[in-house]
Amino acid sequence: MKKEYLLTPGPTPVPPQAREVMAREIIHHRTSGYRKIFQQVSELLKLVFKTKNDILTFTSSGTGAMEAAVVNLLSPGDKAIVVRGGKFGERFEEICRAYNITAINIDVEWGKAVNPDLIAGALDSDKQISAVFTTLCETSTGVVNDIQAIGSIARKYKAILVVDAISGLCADNLQTDEWGVDIAIAASQKGLMTPPGLAFISVSPKARERIEKSRLPRYYFDFKKAKKALEKFDSPFTPAISLMLALKEALELIKAEGIDNVLARHKRLSRAVKAAIKSLGLQMLAPDAPANTVTAVKVPEGIDGLQLVKIIREKYGVTIAGGQGKLKGKIIRIAHLGYMAEFDLIIGISALEMALAELGYKVKLGSGLAAAEEIFSTPGKE
Amino acid sequence: MKKEYLLTPGPTPVPPQAREVMAREIIHHRTSGYRKIFQQVSELLKLVFKTKNDILTFTSSGTGAMEAAVVNLLSPGDKAIVVRGGKFGERFEEICRAYNITAINIDVEWGKAVNPDLIAGALDSDKQISAVFTTLCETSTGVVNDIQAIGSIARKYKAILVVDAISGLCADNLQTDEWGVDIAIAASQKGLMTPPGLAFISVSPKARERIEKSRLPRYYFDFKKAKKALEKFDSPFTPAISLMLALKEALELIKAEGIDNVLARHKRLSRAVKAAIKSLGLQMLAPDAPANTVTAVKVPEGIDGLQLVKIIREKYGVTIAGGQGKLKGKIIRIAHLGYMAEFDLIIGISALEMALAELGYKVKLGSGLAAAEEIFSTPGKE
Repeated sequence: MKKEYLLTPGPTPVPPQAREVMAREIIHHRTSGYRKIFQQVSELLKLVFKTKNDILTFTSSGTGAMEAAVVNLLSPGDKAIVVRGGKFGERFEEICRAYNITAINIDVEWGKAVNPDLIAGALDSDKQISAVFTTLCETSTGVVNDIQAIGSIARKYKAILVVDAISGLCADNLQTDEWGVDIAIAASQKGLMTPPGLAFISVSPKARERIEKSRLPRYYFDFKKAKKALEKFDSPFTPAISLMLALKEALELIKAEGIDNVLARHKRLSRAVKAAIKSLGLQMLAPDAPANTVTAVKVPEGIDGLQLVKIIREKYGVTIAGGQGKLKGKIIRIAHLGYMAEFDLIIGISALEMALAELGYKVKLGSGLAAAEEIFSTPGKE
Repeated sequence: MKKEYLLTPGPTPVPPQAREVMAREIIHHRTSGYRKIFQQVSELLKLVFKTKNDILTFTSSGTGAMEAAVVNLLSPGDKAIVVRGGKFGERFEEICRAYNITAINIDVEWGKAVNPDLIAGALDSDKQISAVFTTLCETSTGVVNDIQAIGSIARKYKAILVVDAISGLCADNLQTDEWGVDIAIAASQKGLMTPPGLAFISVSPKARERIEKSRLPRYYFDFKKAKKALEKFDSPFTPAISLMLALKEALELIKAEGIDNVLARHKRLSRAVKAAIKSLGLQMLAPDAPANTVTAVKVPEGIDGLQLVKIIREKYGVTIAGGQGKLKGKIIRIAHLGYMAEFDLIIGISALEMALAELGYKVKLGSGLAAAEEIFSTPGKE
């Protein structure tokens, strides 16, 4: 017998309520029953995004929605600022390149947040810049960017602010409307506790105007078609019906808990993991701008990072993430995201302690757990 | 109590084996367990497509894969033949237009198959034509095109033959390799008996060469990225994991039945429905090229087609499809597709008889059923 535990920043565990509805007989999407569910999902998503804007839904991974933002907002020859502080920031630049958009890269050391002044400077130096692409939580480094500060800058310019909130939504606070985020992007398999396959995009009035003028080619990801269909709670193309049914259940759970309580839970879980890491003598990759979504931990000198992830998974059944891109083998990433509570992280920290000991790292077994329990058992301690 | 029955050409009923796996705890996609499932799915799909070519998988509806075919094969300024004999043929032209590809339309009366000689003539008159876009079963009209004949023509030219087999696969025979189909497109929610959200594309060596030269922009739907990942049974972006698990179960059922037996079953169900229609004095929209996927029936003079579909759904719980585009209200469409057997169609015919009677159409109750039973109970009768 081997029990399996998933502590990755996507996919994340799916609650039984959401899994069970997918086992039911499928329904057709051009029916009043499905339209009602789509309507409920669209309304509930607004609570989570903290927006009054329309939220468009696409059947794709989050990357599809990132591409959708580029092709619906920009035109050939446009320039866009891309904050590159990790793998997902870099992805925006790759998409811009695929469409011949000139990316003005703001390169940020992996593990640091972007300095909003750099964005202000870039926008000041070229008033023709059409968009700013950045991330809420950069999943590859565990950094949360200061979207509020970036939003207060971007709203003074013609540039559209696009925020990849794919991993961060529900875990790191996002106030789409109050902070002036024009386009926020999310996906189902993160804080929204649903299997992968759905992506979401909120569209501000400022972004809507730009879409009217955009001349990059698109069809499947066309915002105007999606918006027109949404008015009747319909989809231009066959949607991922079973995933939508699951999402509705997951969103009902979020509504019942309250989005601010959901955020507070993620913060508590995140603080406990970070306290455990510190108590084990390990170092965080992103101590200055730590996300509540995922904690990236430097693999200590002399330890094989790939081996560490492998032991945790194969011996203890706990799947955590390793490093991506240039951080491969150099960090591990423990997610505290979505359908997770205290004991999910107790399990994760326990597996980490035992695997570190096996690899010869000097660790006092139970010390990380004690630090986490200290946070969990003391209200207000976080 | 109201029991519901789904007789639409997508989504189609999902077998319990495929539904149940989606209710299990989700697994991560960057694991050997998931890769093994993706490998099995990729191999099983080849049996269904009757191909040795690679089959690429995307998280999207079938339309996403249609766009993928256009943007991976063509370059700005290219010309392509588009067979427009229904809503889905027209969609290829819309996608071409979105990418500034010159579509050479071969317009076919809705309800007729394309005359392959017209394709030969168009290819002869302009040797620079880069692709031929056509459909196996045109879902909107219930027509099956003669892909074998079209393939024997297209292979003599530089044009890449792209076949939308989205609704037809598993119901209407497709011999991808033997018939010279370069790109065959399918989706999960039709004959593959899986919820919507996955799309599939087989790529011939001739198409692979073209992809190397294609210069239309793309990122999410890029074939080269998908192909490179497929070599390790990996995906460039997070796949729709739960749908893939369901698909594996559905494909195992198809393999156990045997693809040619699956095709024979669809043919038998289709013949029974068509015999019932005839016996009820109704006319088929496509008597000359009837698909085994779906039967399109002309709504008789004096009967309101929208009302007919509504009564069948609301009073009898049976969801069939109405007409699309210019056929709205003028036809009904009964699917015999995917996880369906004799009594699913007995139910459909029964509901149709009763609803027709209610609307004042002269019908001898049970006569359609008798015609279907005649087919079902007499082996070889089809």
